[in-house]
Amino acid sequence: MKLLLISNSTNYKEKYLGWCLPLIEDFLKNERKNILFFPYAGINIGGQPYPKSYDAYAERIKGIFEPLGFTVQSTHQAICPVDAVNRADVLMVGGGNTFHLFAEIHQEGLIEPVRRKVMEGTPFVGWSAGANVACPRLCTTNDMPVVMPPSFNGFDLVPFQINPHYIDPFSEAVNDAIRHGGETRQVRLEEFLAVNPQITVAGLREASALWIENERITLKGDNAMRIMRFNQKPQEVETGAVFDFGINLLNNSCYD
Amino acid sequence: MKLLLISNSTNYKEKYLGWCLPLIEDFLKNERKNILFFPYAGINIGGQPYPKSYDAYAERIKGIFEPLGFTVQSTHQAICPVDAVNRADVLMVGGGNTFHLFAEIHQEGLIEPVRRKVMEGTPFVGWSAGANVACPRLCTTNDMPVVMPPSFNGFDLVPFQINPHYIDPFSEAVNDAIRHGGETRQVRLEEFLAVNPQITVAGLREASALWIENERITLKGDNAMRIMRFNQKPQEVETGAVFDFGINLLNNSCYD
Repeated sequence: MKLLLISNSTNYKEKYLGWCLPLIEDFLKNERKNILFFPYAGINIGGQPYPKSYDAYAERIKGIFEPLGFTVQSTHQAICPVDAVNRADVLMVGGGNTFHLFAEIHQEGLIEPVRRKVMEGTPFVGWSAGANVACPRLCTTNDMPVVMPPSFNGFDLVPFQINPHYIDPFSEAVNDAIRHGGETRQVRLEEFLAVNPQITVAGLREASALWIENERITLKGDNAMRIMRFNQKPQEVETGAVFDFGINLLNNSCYD
Repeated sequence: MKLLLISNSTNYKEKYLGWCLPLIEDFLKNERKNILFFPYAGINIGGQPYPKSYDAYAERIKGIFEPLGFTVQSTHQAICPVDAVNRADVLMVGGGNTFHLFAEIHQEGLIEPVRRKVMEGTPFVGWSAGANVACPRLCTTNDMPVVMPPSFNGFDLVPFQINPHYIDPFSEAVNDAIRHGGETRQVRLEEFLAVNPQITVAGLREASALWIENERITLKGDNAMRIMRFNQKPQEVETGAVFDFGINLLNNSCYD
């Protein structure tokens, strides 16, 4: 199994897929070139509301990957998306609204076909919502539930939950500027753990990603990751850390 | 029908129910005194994870309202919550996690009993998640989907969606301090409107509330409200504005 699960497409004030494109290229460098792209999280792309947003999203991805020697087909343009999954060399799931992504993947009957294809060795690349959907459940998204999916079940390719775009509490100065009483990300994830105490959460900060190959998980990118478990002190691990699928460290990259 | 739908319990650095308690007292001043409290959004209250959090939440609310001459029963302590709804003088729904609130309300079979009771004239007070659940659907919450409710349907007491804790985009200075690429509230709500173009969203900023009586809606509190519709310029309305149920202004309080 070969997965690249990326926190975010775009760092603050950088271009789309700017920071992570070299990582994706490296991940795919020895792979065959036919990408199947899942645009279902993109419901308002470049001023194009759903469903035209799918066309805009697919064009954007083609514009990035075709010059690199890949071909890109989008599931929404396939006559039979399940057939397209079975024929693809690479599966790529873009970010956007996670609820809409789950809704469409279930409605198209893609959970089992994708899961089987990835288990058979086809590389999977997902960012943001596309990383979340590789997890057991939808439950650790930051997105707004603009539609109700038939199920919160994801592709279940890893046994833990990723929180993409993980963000630390704001500084006192920022809070004094905002003056907002809403929950922090920590409070939200503690709520998740209070009702799902058996599941580990990987808080994947922006500009970081999990490179998963042969049951080894390596933290890539520029930022530490925060591992959260119910009733335990969170653990901070640095870039280069290697884990097993239970998010147990296999090297000494923990610094907190 | 008599509803008080409050954006937030607690302003930044203020005490719990600080800003809105006088408003709730005013709203209930001529009402009978037996409050039925719904604690289901409270899944991690005062260091008490679910389900003990319900006890902690009920105690907190009793500590605030009993000194004011009310009695408070919590639905989670009722032998039959539906009977408790039928006997209550006031229905009060606290904030917290909106998904958990919806899950429990559906599992207890409370949607129709509450809806009927409110339609018959029993006052309803809700803040944050408790304001969201008065809307047709769950879809405009900011919360994390820590559980999947059986349905996204709410009490459907108003025909529009409230976004509680509505927040404006951060200033350039704040963004430069945070350096986060995640979506703004505006982007999220535009996604909601892209897939639900027929529904109006009331962006209810903190320290504001909707006082609804006899099909008239009045904006209370200290902040303007932002009305958002698909493909239309958002409208800002000031405190004191009066609307009908279609969120059409009945006075001249629009300033943008």
